[in-house]
Amino acid sequence: MNPFRALQTTERTTLHRLRERGATDRSVLYDVLNAGLICHFGVVIDGSPVVLPTGYGRIGDLLYLHGSSGNRSLQFAEGQDVCVTVTLLDGLVCARSVFHNSMNYRSAVIFGAPRLVTDPDERLAALQAITEHLIPGRWENSRKPTKKELAATVVIALSLDEASVKIRGGGAKDEDEDYGLDYWAGVLPITQTIGEAEPDPLLPPGSAMPEHIALLEHRSVGDRALMPDSD
Amino acid sequence: MNPFRALQTTERTTLHRLRERGATDRSVLYDVLNAGLICHFGVVIDGSPVVLPTGYGRIGDLLYLHGSSGNRSLQFAEGQDVCVTVTLLDGLVCARSVFHNSMNYRSAVIFGAPRLVTDPDERLAALQAITEHLIPGRWENSRKPTKKELAATVVIALSLDEASVKIRGGGAKDEDEDYGLDYWAGVLPITQTIGEAEPDPLLPPGSAMPEHIALLEHRSVGDRALMPDSD
Repeated sequence: MNPFRALQTTERTTLHRLRERGATDRSVLYDVLNAGLICHFGVVIDGSPVVLPTGYGRIGDLLYLHGSSGNRSLQFAEGQDVCVTVTLLDGLVCARSVFHNSMNYRSAVIFGAPRLVTDPDERLAALQAITEHLIPGRWENSRKPTKKELAATVVIALSLDEASVKIRGGGAKDEDEDYGLDYWAGVLPITQTIGEAEPDPLLPPGSAMPEHIALLEHRSVGDRALMPDSD
Repeated sequence: MNPFRALQTTERTTLHRLRERGATDRSVLYDVLNAGLICHFGVVIDGSPVVLPTGYGRIGDLLYLHGSSGNRSLQFAEGQDVCVTVTLLDGLVCARSVFHNSMNYRSAVIFGAPRLVTDPDERLAALQAITEHLIPGRWENSRKPTKKELAATVVIALSLDEASVKIRGGGAKDEDEDYGLDYWAGVLPITQTIGEAEPDPLLPPGSAMPEHIALLEHRSVGDRALMPDSD
């Protein structure tokens, strides 16, 4: 996989507005996907869009989603066009005018027709990637899925070829004539952080907290992407 | 508006799995919408779902979205079925088994065919609600939109009748036979917080920070819902 291979530009991924906020670098896409925790998965069911939050994992240029075999949105996704969006909100931008109030964010929008993953090895690798994406190190520190649990799980793969990334950073951008107005302008930064771990009350007394959990406490969610187990 | 009027139950809003996580109380829906910052807006364009992050505002039982008049996703939304999803991620739940790893969250999923808002008063009220939703007090502390800016803005309204709310809280739920295993279990709480305001470098020297901004510093994003200007 060449991380510098450009993303495919199609009608769907072409930004029709504010093109300066767009990026077509594959490495920028992967940075957003690595930093994000969940995605919003959109699929058309009976003609109507359905948008649901869910976890995800990435291996190379494939994005994996999973769910219960009773999950309708995944059942309807195979071979159909879907849209997966990952958004990181970085700040509220206060401009002098209501019109130029904005947000700082990084967002990735991926289009494609997913493939149902049936190969047992790929299914297991995908579930590991989804698990590790949320909590690096968790796979090795949990009981692995049984055959019955695997049978109750659907895994789909989406190619990361048709995607767009949009990023807004920096401060307020006001109309020239508004800079003299007596309104405050600036940015309220937003951070998503992991707090202090709350051990399960049913753990044996004196259970030590494993390193992969201790490492995440009091860290920004995006720091996960810098940890040894993620790529 | 009666906040206790139950939400409409349709095929789309019926939870097909884990029904104990569902809520049909209108007040629970409003709590999630008040606490959330952005939504993910899903619309079908040329047969394919498109999911984009955007701000929103609520007045009574109507949800308002806005965008540039060049925004394709809003142009395609009028009179068509759309889906608006608001998700608050509250924690990563570590179970003893990979299969039972989970997340704590609150999510609202709203379906319906939006109406294009054309009445000037309703358009202005909607823009005020969208502005105030992100930053209570901001409307009164910014320059109001000009006719030209209003003409460049599309506003749509979505009824909050057909919606579902799903909430997961608490700790890990493991298989009975797994409680004896030597794996750590517990919750890593996640919080989205507003940091220290970064004043625009082009503000006149010595500009005071207004109260509505100072009130938000170092607060959890959900605290906005408790502030005087929100309902």
